[in-house]
Amino acid sequence: MNAKKYVAEAIGTFWLTFAGCGSAVIAAGFPNVGIGLLGVSLAFGLTVVTMAYAIGHISGCHLNPAVTVGLAAGGRFPAGQVVPYIVAQVIGAIAGAAVLYAIARGAPGFDLAGGFASNGYGDHSPGKYNLVSGFLMEVVMTMVFLFIIMGSTHGKAPAGFAPLAIGLGLALIHLVSIPVTNTSVNPARSTGPALFVGDWAIGQLWLFWVAPLIGGILGGVIYRWLSSEPEGIVSGN
Amino acid sequence: MNAKKYVAEAIGTFWLTFAGCGSAVIAAGFPNVGIGLLGVSLAFGLTVVTMAYAIGHISGCHLNPAVTVGLAAGGRFPAGQVVPYIVAQVIGAIAGAAVLYAIARGAPGFDLAGGFASNGYGDHSPGKYNLVSGFLMEVVMTMVFLFIIMGSTHGKAPAGFAPLAIGLGLALIHLVSIPVTNTSVNPARSTGPALFVGDWAIGQLWLFWVAPLIGGILGGVIYRWLSSEPEGIVSGN
Amino acid sequence: MNAKKYVAEAIGTFWLTFAGCGSAVIAAGFPNVGIGLLGVSLAFGLTVVTMAYAIGHISGCHLNPAVTVGLAAGGRFPAGQVVPYIVAQVIGAIAGAAVLYAIARGAPGFDLAGGFASNGYGDHSPGKYNLVSGFLMEVVMTMVFLFIIMGSTHGKAPAGFAPLAIGLGLALIHLVSIPVTNTSVNPARSTGPALFVGDWAIGQLWLFWVAPLIGGILGGVIYRWLSSEPEGIVSGN
Amino acid sequence: MNAKKYVAEAIGTFWLTFAGCGSAVIAAGFPNVGIGLLGVSLAFGLTVVTMAYAIGHISGCHLNPAVTVGLAAGGRFPAGQVVPYIVAQVIGAIAGAAVLYAIARGAPGFDLAGGFASNGYGDHSPGKYNLVSGFLMEVVMTMVFLFIIMGSTHGKAPAGFAPLAIGLGLALIHLVSIPVTNTSVNPARSTGPALFVGDWAIGQLWLFWVAPLIGGILGGVIYRWLSSEPEGIVSGN
Repeated sequence: MNAKKYVAEAIGTFWLTFAGCGSAVIAAGFPNVGIGLLGVSLAFGLTVVTMAYAIGHISGCHLNPAVTVGLAAGGRFPAGQVVPYIVAQVIGAIAGAAVLYAIARGAPGFDLAGGFASNGYGDHSPGKYNLVSGFLMEVVMTMVFLFIIMGSTHGKAPAGFAPLAIGLGLALIHLVSIPVTNTSVNPARSTGPALFVGDWAIGQLWLFWVAPLIGGILGGVIYRWLSSEPEGIVSGN
Repeated sequence: MNAKKYVAEAIGTFWLTFAGCGSAVIAAGFPNVGIGLLGVSLAFGLTVVTMAYAIGHISGCHLNPAVTVGLAAGGRFPAGQVVPYIVAQVIGAIAGAAVLYAIARGAPGFDLAGGFASNGYGDHSPGKYNLVSGFLMEVVMTMVFLFIIMGSTHGKAPAGFAPLAIGLGLALIHLVSIPVTNTSVNPARSTGPALFVGDWAIGQLWLFWVAPLIGGILGGVIYRWLSSEPEGIVSGN
Repeated sequence: MNAKKYVAEAIGTFWLTFAGCGSAVIAAGFPNVGIGLLGVSLAFGLTVVTMAYAIGHISGCHLNPAVTVGLAAGGRFPAGQVVPYIVAQVIGAIAGAAVLYAIARGAPGFDLAGGFASNGYGDHSPGKYNLVSGFLMEVVMTMVFLFIIMGSTHGKAPAGFAPLAIGLGLALIHLVSIPVTNTSVNPARSTGPALFVGDWAIGQLWLFWVAPLIGGILGGVIYRWLSSEPEGIVSGN
Repeated sequence: MNAKKYVAEAIGTFWLTFAGCGSAVIAAGFPNVGIGLLGVSLAFGLTVVTMAYAIGHISGCHLNPAVTVGLAAGGRFPAGQVVPYIVAQVIGAIAGAAVLYAIARGAPGFDLAGGFASNGYGDHSPGKYNLVSGFLMEVVMTMVFLFIIMGSTHGKAPAGFAPLAIGLGLALIHLVSIPVTNTSVNPARSTGPALFVGDWAIGQLWLFWVAPLIGGILGGVIYRWLSSEPEGIVSGN
C-alpha cells in the first residue's frame, strides 16, 4: 500500500510538470491562436484538479514538496513520510520534463535556450522582476496556496470540492505571477525543466526551493491556528 | 472564536485585492501573451471561489462591505457585526494593495500612474464611460451579486456549490463591467489601491462605496422578499 | 407563490440578457485586452450557472422560451404554465436590454448600429453565414441544449451539478456558433436587443423564435424517449 | 435498454465531434475576437462535461473507442460490448462531421482544404511536429486520460465530480497538444472529419487509432494495478 502512494505522487507530479510546462512550451506562443498566459494558468490548475480526483484517495495528491512540508507543519501529514513523498515528486517532475523534451524536440526550431518553462528572477524573470519581488511573490503565493489547501480539506468545508478549490487556486496563482517568476510555488516542478536547461536555471533553482518551502510552512501554521485544530495528525487530507 | 472570524475576513480580502488587482497590474497587458480582461475576470472570481471553500466555515467569507451590508439587509447577518467585518475587510484590502505594490515596483518601468487597478469613471473609466453609467453599473451589478449570494446559500439550493456560484458570479460581473469602472462592486477592494494612487482615485472613491452599498441592500431585500424568508437572522450563510 | 416564480424568471432572464449581451457590447472588442468570443461565451454560460443556483429552487430557472417549451414537450413541465413563463422571460429580456442600453450609451462613440448583440443571418451573421446554416445551427444547438438539460436534471444524474452542466453547455454552444448567428438558442434573449436595434434585427427575429422552439421540442422528445420516462409531469426539474 | 445505450453513445460522440471540431472550424480563427486554441480546448472539454452529466447514467458516456477499450483493459467494462460501443461512437462522429460540414459550407470562403479540424503529423501537424512526437504525445495523453477516468470514477473518489474531472482533463490535454497533432486521443473524433477531407487525413488516420488505443490500454492497466481492484467487471463506471 505504501509503495503505491509514492507511485501515485510520482505519476501526479509527472502530469503537473509535463502538462503544465508543456502548455507553456508548446502552446502558449503558438502564432495567432496561442493560449497565452491564461491558457498556461488553466493548464497548471487543471493538472491538479484532474489528479486530485484521480489519486486524492490514494496519496492525498500533494504533487509538491512545499505542500507536503506545509501540511506537515499544519499538523495534517506525518513528518516521517515527508522525505519519501518529496523524492517521489522530484522523480515524477524530472520524468515529466524528460518526456516533454522528447516530444518538443520534434518541432522545427525548438531550442532549450527558450527557457523550457524554467523559473527565474532578474534577467530570467519573464517581466524582468528583481530577486526581492520574485522571492516575496513565491513566499506569499505558496503561503496562501497552503491556506486554501488546509481550509478546503478541513472537515467543516463542503466534501468533494477541495480538488476544484485547490486546482483553481493554482490557476489563479499563475494568472498573477507568471510574469514575475514564471510561477513555481512548487520546487519539484521547478527542478524538472531546470535540469534540462542547466546553467542559469540551475543557478537560480535555490530560490524555488527556499521561498515555496517558507511560504508553505507559514500557510500551514497560520491556518492551523485559525481553525484551532488540535495537535497531532488529523485524518482526511 | 470571534477574533478568528475577523482575521479570516482580513486574510480573504487581502487575497481578493492582492490577486485580483495583481492579475490586472502584472499580467493583463503582458506583451503578446497577456491574460487580458478575461484573465483578470477569472482571477477576481477565483479569489472568492478559493477563499469561500477555505474560510466559508469560519467567517462566511464576505470579503466585501457591500456583501456584509446586503446580507444584513436580507436578514442573513447580525447588524451588530457589520462594522467589525467591514473594518477587517478594509484592513485586509489595504494590506493586499501594499504587498502588491512591494512586488510590482520590482519591475522596470512600473508606475503607479498606470492606475494600479483603481476604479474610476469619466476620464478614469477604462472605456471613458460617464458617471451615470458607472453608478448604474455598480448598483445593478452589486444588486444581482447579492441576489446570487442570497439564492445560492439558501437552504433549498444544492449544498456546497455556493462558492462556485458566487465566485463565478464575480467573474461574470468583471467580464461585463471592467471597461466601465474597472469593476468594483466592493468598497474594500476599491479602497486598497486608491490609497496608493491618491489624487483622482481618492476623489472618485465615494462612488465605489455608495453605489455598491445601495446595490447590495437592494439585492438583499429583493431576494428576501422573493424567497419569503421569515424575519430575523437565519443560520447557514 | 406562483407570482414569485414569474418574478424569478423575469429577473433571471434580465440577467442573462443584460450580462450576456453586455459582455459582447461592452467588453468583447475592448482594445488590446478585450475578452473576445471566448469571454462572451463564458459570460452567457455563467449567467445560467449563477441564476440556476440562485433561483432554480424557485422557478426551475428556464430563462428561455425554448427551454420552457422543450421541457413541456419532454414531459417535465406543465403545459398550462408555458405562456406565463414565456411572458415573464420576454419582459425580463427587454428590461435587460434597456438597462444595458442606458449604460452603454454613456461611452463615447457608442452606436446601436454596431448591432447591440442582436442575432442575425446572411449579411447580419458575424461570419456572413447564410440562412440555411443559421437555421440549422440554431435547431441543432437548441436540440442538444434541451438534451443536456433533460439529462442533467434527471433523477439518476448526480444531484446539484445540473446548473454547472447546463450553464457550461450554453457556454459551449456560444463557443461554436457566435460567428454563425451571434448565437441565440433563446427567443427571449434575441427579442430584447432586437427591439432597440429595430430594422433588420426585427426582420430576422422570426428565425430566432422558430428554430430554437423546433430544436427545443426535438431535444425534449428525444431525451424523453431515451430515458424511457413515464408519461405525464415528473417532479424535480 | 441495450439499444438506448448505443444511441446515447452515438449522440454523445456526435456532440463531441460536432461542437469540438466546430469550435475549431468556425470560431478559433475568427478575426480579432477568435477563441483560439484555448477556446477550442475548453469546447472539447465541455462536450464531455455536458454529456457525462446528461447520459452518464445511461451509457457511461465513453464517446471514444480508446476509453471503451481502456476501461475494458482496466476491468471496468465488459469486453463483449466493446465492439458495438465503438461502432456507435464512429457513427456518431461521422454524423457530427456531416452536420458541421452542412453548416460550415454556408460561409463565404469555406474550404475543406483548411483541414476541417482533422488530426495530423509532420507536414499536417499544426506546428509541424514529426511522427515520433505525434505518436508519443497521443500515447501519453490517452494514457493519462484513462488514468484520470479510472481514478475519478473509482468508488473512493468523491461522487458526482467525475464528469468535471474527465471533461476538464480533456480540455487540459488539448491545451497542451493541439500544436502537435491537433489533438485526437479519440479515434472516432479523428475519423469523422478525415472522411470529409480524404487524402492525407485518411492516410494519417492510422496513427489516431493505434496510438490512442495503446495509451488507453496502458492507462487502464496502470490504474488498475495502482488501485488494486479485484479482477472482473466492477460496477459503477
